[in-house]
Amino acid sequence: MAFDGHNFKLERTLMNYIEHVNKCNRHDLMAFRPFILENIKLGNIRHKFVNKLLAFKDVFKEMGTAITLSENLKSFSTRNHAISEVVNELILQGHLPKLRNEFYPVTTSFYKPPFFQLDRAAVPYFGVRAFGVHLNGFTKNSNGSLDLWIARRAKDRLICPSMLDNIVGGGQPIGLGIMENLIKECTEEASITKDLSTTAIPVGAISYMMETEAGLRHDTLFCFDLKLSDDFVPKNRDGEISNFYRWPIQRVAQIVNDGFEFKFNCNLVLIDFLIRHGFITPDHPHYTKLIKGLRF
Amino acid sequence: MAFDGHNFKLERTLMNYIEHVNKCNRHDLMAFRPFILENIKLGNIRHKFVNKLLAFKDVFKEMGTAITLSENLKSFSTRNHAISEVVNELILQGHLPKLRNEFYPVTTSFYKPPFFQLDRAAVPYFGVRAFGVHLNGFTKNSNGSLDLWIARRAKDRLICPSMLDNIVGGGQPIGLGIMENLIKECTEEASITKDLSTTAIPVGAISYMMETEAGLRHDTLFCFDLKLSDDFVPKNRDGEISNFYRWPIQRVAQIVNDGFEFKFNCNLVLIDFLIRHGFITPDHPHYTKLIKGLRF
Repeated sequence: MAFDGHNFKLERTLMNYIEHVNKCNRHDLMAFRPFILENIKLGNIRHKFVNKLLAFKDVFKEMGTAITLSENLKSFSTRNHAISEVVNELILQGHLPKLRNEFYPVTTSFYKPPFFQLDRAAVPYFGVRAFGVHLNGFTKNSNGSLDLWIARRAKDRLICPSMLDNIVGGGQPIGLGIMENLIKECTEEASITKDLSTTAIPVGAISYMMETEAGLRHDTLFCFDLKLSDDFVPKNRDGEISNFYRWPIQRVAQIVNDGFEFKFNCNLVLIDFLIRHGFITPDHPHYTKLIKGLRF
Repeated sequence: MAFDGHNFKLERTLMNYIEHVNKCNRHDLMAFRPFILENIKLGNIRHKFVNKLLAFKDVFKEMGTAITLSENLKSFSTRNHAISEVVNELILQGHLPKLRNEFYPVTTSFYKPPFFQLDRAAVPYFGVRAFGVHLNGFTKNSNGSLDLWIARRAKDRLICPSMLDNIVGGGQPIGLGIMENLIKECTEEASITKDLSTTAIPVGAISYMMETEAGLRHDTLFCFDLKLSDDFVPKNRDGEISNFYRWPIQRVAQIVNDGFEFKFNCNLVLIDFLIRHGFITPDHPHYTKLIKGLRF
């Protein structure tokens, strides 16, 4: 377990779960301007980035305190084209990181048609909602105890390199169903066959709104539980994971509670798992606060 | 299945789950005044009832737009004594229903010491938080299908007579632990032995804020799942239940979705169960709205 001894000591208490919820929901909307389209608030853009966008007068414009798209951009495709040009130019200017070449739908709800699509790299800069799928892969031992499979992210990952992660997790690109995406990620990240991944049970979702250097992450993660056989061993295919560990759930709970070894949002997925399976119980002083805090 | 044919038809859609969440969260706080103590908001009291309380000048007083207790009432016991006298007088005057002789803790969180105690009958008039325990008792069949045990409330119950209910459910009185209360309710309501009820898994909590004729119900229900053996049959002891039914989960889901046969808050407990066990899936158009809506 790698941690900074000094900070770790300061932060170690018997009830750190809530700190993960707080961390994932830390934001100050005063630092942002609302991003509105067709009278619907789609996101929040940091003042500094608003100024960069407003330089593109044919695409972005002010509307009171908010920022919106030019009314000439009415359709999904014209919006995509115009915004893609802006994004490419801002990458050249050094105001956006390089493209991920994976498009996310921009929408207020996963169940509504998207207003336009945005490269994953630009999503937090617009503070628009993003979606993902995360899997808890577990094994029940003959003595009734439960082991959870945990992944360690490859050290070359853009976000949270070398940190611990759920066995499978991924963003939700446009045009793919939630279950299709889970099956795809299961194959790529852990060599879980389609026959097996389709037995995963959808068990809810967690969400959060977190200010980052880029802007604002407003994410909803659909969570799945998958019971694995005792002899199952995950194998990574896409290079995103360096190791897998099969750990008793109590060990996972301790790591989540004691520090920050997991990628920030995986802690919320795990806290949700610990609550649903009775490993965090109603006598925990933050029980109701945790349950409420997992849904922003 | 008893229902009003006409209304039922109007309300029947493929996605009525959300209507239960909406119904349990319908309230207009403009009709209430905040009830504050030691600078902490404890509840909401309807204007008309505030006037009744303010007639007791030694106990209640205004503080700006809020209502609070006289500063002479500093301790748990002096508050209990004074409020109990007011409650008894208001029962005599016909402004409160008769005592339930069961005290609830008045607090902002189940984990903090209560400010005072209040007879269960008066709780919604003060709009203070109340807590409860509800149990999902289920059986897994050899073919993998799941049956849920459902109760029908006795026809002489004060609230929701003859309506469907969870197999076990009850309010959380002062001085009893959550698990102690569950064990007690399991014995009284369904003859579930202590050995069995202690195997119930705490799986989270649902909460809601609902305006009623009495005032405001601001409830948090701790939810438990209990796996029952195939030959288990519940038997009621306290007269609160007239019948038990063992129904396939799909039938329960249909009844919840199609109408209002269950006691209002049981619908939320069941929707939470359906989500956690994958019977309501992420492709349901209200999936994220339901998950968020179950926690007020």
